[in-house]
Amino acid sequence: MPKLTLNEDRLFPAESTQREIARRIYSTTKDLPIISPHGHVPPSWFSENTSFGNPAQLLLTPDHYINRIMHANGVELSQLGVGREEMSEEDNRNAWRTFCAHWSDYNGTAMRYWMTDQLVGIFGVTERPSPETADVIYDQIQGWIDDEAHRPRELMDKFNIEFIATTDDPCDDLADHQAIHANQEFSSKHRVVPTFRPDKYLEPGRADWNELVNSLGEVSGVSVDTLSGFTEAMENRRAYFKENGAISTDHSHADLQTNVVDRAMAENLYQLARTSLISPAQATELRRFLLVDQIRMATEDGLTMTLHPAVVRNHDPHAFAEYGADVGGDIPYALEVTRSMQPALAKFGNHPNLKLVLFTLDEDVFSREIAPLAGYYRSLYIGVPWWFIDAPESILRYKQSVTEMAGFSRTSGMIDDTRAFCSIPARHDMSRRLDAVHLASLVATHRLDEDEAIEQARRLVVDQPKKVFNL
Amino acid sequence: MPKLTLNEDRLFPAESTQREIARRIYSTTKDLPIISPHGHVPPSWFSENTSFGNPAQLLLTPDHYINRIMHANGVELSQLGVGREEMSEEDNRNAWRTFCAHWSDYNGTAMRYWMTDQLVGIFGVTERPSPETADVIYDQIQGWIDDEAHRPRELMDKFNIEFIATTDDPCDDLADHQAIHANQEFSSKHRVVPTFRPDKYLEPGRADWNELVNSLGEVSGVSVDTLSGFTEAMENRRAYFKENGAISTDHSHADLQTNVVDRAMAENLYQLARTSLISPAQATELRRFLLVDQIRMATEDGLTMTLHPAVVRNHDPHAFAEYGADVGGDIPYALEVTRSMQPALAKFGNHPNLKLVLFTLDEDVFSREIAPLAGYYRSLYIGVPWWFIDAPESILRYKQSVTEMAGFSRTSGMIDDTRAFCSIPARHDMSRRLDAVHLASLVATHRLDEDEAIEQARRLVVDQPKKVFNL
Amino acid sequence: MPKLTLNEDRLFPAESTQREIARRIYSTTKDLPIISPHGHVPPSWFSENTSFGNPAQLLLTPDHYINRIMHANGVELSQLGVGREEMSEEDNRNAWRTFCAHWSDYNGTAMRYWMTDQLVGIFGVTERPSPETADVIYDQIQGWIDDEAHRPRELMDKFNIEFIATTDDPCDDLADHQAIHANQEFSSKHRVVPTFRPDKYLEPGRADWNELVNSLGEVSGVSVDTLSGFTEAMENRRAYFKENGAISTDHSHADLQTNVVDRAMAENLYQLARTSLISPAQATELRRFLLVDQIRMATEDGLTMTLHPAVVRNHDPHAFAEYGADVGGDIPYALEVTRSMQPALAKFGNHPNLKLVLFTLDEDVFSREIAPLAGYYRSLYIGVPWWFIDAPESILRYKQSVTEMAGFSRTSGMIDDTRAFCSIPARHDMSRRLDAVHLASLVATHRLDEDEAIEQARRLVVDQPKKVFNL
Repeated sequence: MPKLTLNEDRLFPAESTQREIARRIYSTTKDLPIISPHGHVPPSWFSENTSFGNPAQLLLTPDHYINRIMHANGVELSQLGVGREEMSEEDNRNAWRTFCAHWSDYNGTAMRYWMTDQLVGIFGVTERPSPETADVIYDQIQGWIDDEAHRPRELMDKFNIEFIATTDDPCDDLADHQAIHANQEFSSKHRVVPTFRPDKYLEPGRADWNELVNSLGEVSGVSVDTLSGFTEAMENRRAYFKENGAISTDHSHADLQTNVVDRAMAENLYQLARTSLISPAQATELRRFLLVDQIRMATEDGLTMTLHPAVVRNHDPHAFAEYGADVGGDIPYALEVTRSMQPALAKFGNHPNLKLVLFTLDEDVFSREIAPLAGYYRSLYIGVPWWFIDAPESILRYKQSVTEMAGFSRTSGMIDDTRAFCSIPARHDMSRRLDAVHLASLVATHRLDEDEAIEQARRLVVDQPKKVFNL
Repeated sequence: MPKLTLNEDRLFPAESTQREIARRIYSTTKDLPIISPHGHVPPSWFSENTSFGNPAQLLLTPDHYINRIMHANGVELSQLGVGREEMSEEDNRNAWRTFCAHWSDYNGTAMRYWMTDQLVGIFGVTERPSPETADVIYDQIQGWIDDEAHRPRELMDKFNIEFIATTDDPCDDLADHQAIHANQEFSSKHRVVPTFRPDKYLEPGRADWNELVNSLGEVSGVSVDTLSGFTEAMENRRAYFKENGAISTDHSHADLQTNVVDRAMAENLYQLARTSLISPAQATELRRFLLVDQIRMATEDGLTMTLHPAVVRNHDPHAFAEYGADVGGDIPYALEVTRSMQPALAKFGNHPNLKLVLFTLDEDVFSREIAPLAGYYRSLYIGVPWWFIDAPESILRYKQSVTEMAGFSRTSGMIDDTRAFCSIPARHDMSRRLDAVHLASLVATHRLDEDEAIEQARRLVVDQPKKVFNL
Repeated sequence: MPKLTLNEDRLFPAESTQREIARRIYSTTKDLPIISPHGHVPPSWFSENTSFGNPAQLLLTPDHYINRIMHANGVELSQLGVGREEMSEEDNRNAWRTFCAHWSDYNGTAMRYWMTDQLVGIFGVTERPSPETADVIYDQIQGWIDDEAHRPRELMDKFNIEFIATTDDPCDDLADHQAIHANQEFSSKHRVVPTFRPDKYLEPGRADWNELVNSLGEVSGVSVDTLSGFTEAMENRRAYFKENGAISTDHSHADLQTNVVDRAMAENLYQLARTSLISPAQATELRRFLLVDQIRMATEDGLTMTLHPAVVRNHDPHAFAEYGADVGGDIPYALEVTRSMQPALAKFGNHPNLKLVLFTLDEDVFSREIAPLAGYYRSLYIGVPWWFIDAPESILRYKQSVTEMAGFSRTSGMIDDTRAFCSIPARHDMSRRLDAVHLASLVATHRLDEDEAIEQARRLVVDQPKKVFNL
């Protein structure tokens, strides 16, 4: 049986000079605590501390990175548990067998890299996944899951996660977060905080927008009959999130266009939207105003804003109808930043209390737009590659694109953005290894001294996220 | 005189660990038969098995890759035989002398790489092309051409080409293909098949469209007075091509926009087009419907579709007027896939009988759009780099962009797309070397085991083209 | 105290085979004279030969590459002397201290690379900049500046600059250039020439356009009441620049769209523009005609044209209001070439007397549009990376993108485009090192023989600029 192993030097260059330097740099960051300022782990995991169930439920069903490759190779998402209420033990085992049978379809992918890291590093698997080994591996992971030492709160210790943010609806009462916070033993060592994600509420073109806004009014106890009321309700909820530990707000829209319009004109659009007479173009115009207004709020309450635009959500309408959102059918398209964000940056781009972290799925804008902008505007930070481009070669391309223009000080630090909890150590470890690879190339080509590289590596892991997210 | 040589390790990295791995991987694929599912070699070469004539006629006149560089450096295309009825022995020799004098203008290009491979590997040339060596090399190649063992059919053996597809007009009677097929000795060892290329017939905005459609009606024996008739005629010709061995259809339009419109509305547009009253915008709308209808036909007859959009054809109108199409004046522009193809993918993207291979000349869409789409939709495959980006660094960029998102299983396998017959072995060899280079980098950085890399290399050469083109 | 050093092998790959080849190639070009066909050094420096003042004035205040990174990290531009009439010795020293305190913010940037080269290589600094070493370094550089052997004219010798072009307004009387030329001792060894930069005069949408055109009329002594007069005035000034040594004209507009319209229609638009009734769309149309007319003039007078489009100038209106233009707030956006330039290239693209050098800040167009175009059209040359992408990794990406499609013969040769005089040797040295790195990779992977690489390296430094700029 072929073995599954984790090489100590994985991702490091084969060339010995650079490999040695990379090893030395990595050795100084590999054991630093994990800071995860943006992700999608459910807070209930930490408040309830329940078991992860079984290997399929832990590693396959919720992970669209994994599912989509099998889907493309002919597997139905329902076979993997997606959208299903019930999965028998045999169903889960079959899902795992299917995954193991497709192991080679992941050759060369980031998913293969993270999964290997988890299988060997966390669960102690030693054999390569295949139809022959699927059941043994399943049983081995099941045994690990069933160990009470492997519940979410215990894993926060084991994974050395110091800080983690979840992503939450503005109307959420944050009860899970309050319960986590009330657990002093846990919360004295680990900070778990909510993230305010209002973007649905900023899209007056959505069919459910009026309902959403009504809920916002109810939860905040503010009348949302006017734009002023809506604004106050938003500010109220932002304040509530901040009181409950939030450090940032998260935004995804079709584009980055920012409109700095007259508030009276926006009030007119808001009235149209509330009475359902708004046109698509007007809805877009209002959304662009509302986004700028969130930026304005951020200059007041100091919550960092993360922006990740330009994705067609639910590209496959059949999968959306059958399985709902977030099942792997979201597809990027071209992004424009320079002209779109000019109005907002002209107004707030150097505000001392504002931090905007701009993520992209379109690599082209890294060197063409984001690095030039973040190398000038104080409020703008370069978000590291996430989603689709959160893989080794893409990350190295990113580093080679932005660093020589804007330096390291304008970058966000590692963002894992994941809902796959057990992949968090692998993702942060990958990031630190790639930091070391990039810095080693600068040292080996005499562009940086090794002591500077070591100091820089630590800053990327510790100082940048703390600075950018006000930790 | 400087020598011309072919190093065994060409394209392999200098670093010894990776070079050794690359050598081992390459050694397992280098002698596998060539599968060429899309190209532009004339079928008459195999039915008639005539001599290639002379070195200029074989290597220069028909190859726009080669011609355009000399053109940019001041050589008239007519000096190279382009667009000329007659070339004397002295004219051809002068064309060759011109090429040899411009040898250093090809430094670092893919054309230089392929030509060196042919000169040394096929013709046995040992001296670097230059004004001094031009005549000797000309004579040497002429001697090779004049050897009856170097006729097209014999070269199919020598080049180890198992499968090759030509590109043909829907109205073609495929007589050459039938003659090839009738030659049992040859066709038992080599499969030469036609490709259905209907794109001209799908462009109602062309001045010659009605004539083309009339021909289609005549050849198919179906009245093309209505869209239904046109559709039946198309299906008829697709069936005829399929009976004659075709495995795919080939399409190049200005963009990838797909319109899923009502057939009755399309019929109206068709009537306008047939009576020559159609506007450019309507013609585009009809073309987008007709393209989707080809996709629908593909779900029924199972012919794979290759798409390669977004090129300005005949950018230089003077060259077009003097020399016609395909003389090097086709220039790429930006491509959009995600939103353009959404209507067709929503309808057919997971159809079990459909295979779409999407090629691009715009590298940006590899990581931003094509890999994300092909990593989800079952019917969509990532076409390997072709034309302009079919060169070593571009190919490595492609591999580093798409693999970590979508894996190898979603890629097309090597497509040479060439009309330069003697370059086919060099092109496929280059592809296998670059497969080895990329896989070796994954092995050397501990992302893949060597046995997996070797298995993957074979799949890229054998399994992927067979799967994607239903061979 | 950490040392500051310049390694002989900087930028060369760590892998020994390639490093050795790179060293050998570089050794043949490193001492060749510098040819700088486009840049922004004021001609008065050479006519007046005044002292550079102090370290802040020499290295910080005028260099927006340096300033913008500090600005992004919270430093006010005025602290660095930008936009200020007066800076005391303490102000300048404080600016330098601020820079030294921000030294690590430049880690990995091109600015850090060039600055290190200058600090060690020119000023003899041996300690790493920091708050502790700032004053010592300041004093050391001040001492160097105060040495009369380090005046601009003397440095032309020391820096081995054979040719340098400045950038000048069409209405400039070129008195500085005439004074330089009159200094026979200097001008017999160094050629300093003006560049004709008319782009403001081609933008009828500018508020100051009529004033500019009036000045042009006055200076040329031609009535500019009609387009014919404007054209004659332009031709007159181009001729004046040419008489005074100019070799090129320089153009930056929002896009590359070229309109080949009827001159009578252009005359109508010109009349509208002169009477201030022109709409923005008409102004753009006229500008596109006027740009094409500059191309037409270039075919007649043989001045090379450099084009560098697609930048939002003064993106931050507050900085523009406070400090004026060129303070780091210019930001690139996406560029289109293929379709935009088609009208002009169809008309003039193969003209024997025309040379267009196309620069881009959008890396995507290198492989997608510029290399395909320049690999066909005789008049179009690929401008090397400049501004933002004039950094090592970007330059290597450029080389790996364009070379394999278009070869080296279609490239412009090194353009430093700088106003930082003392960085010119560092920038050209960096370029030659990267030439060697790229060529060494071709040699090490057996795509080029070493003697060819050495010859090619020399051509890139000597022959290409001489050919492209008619030197």
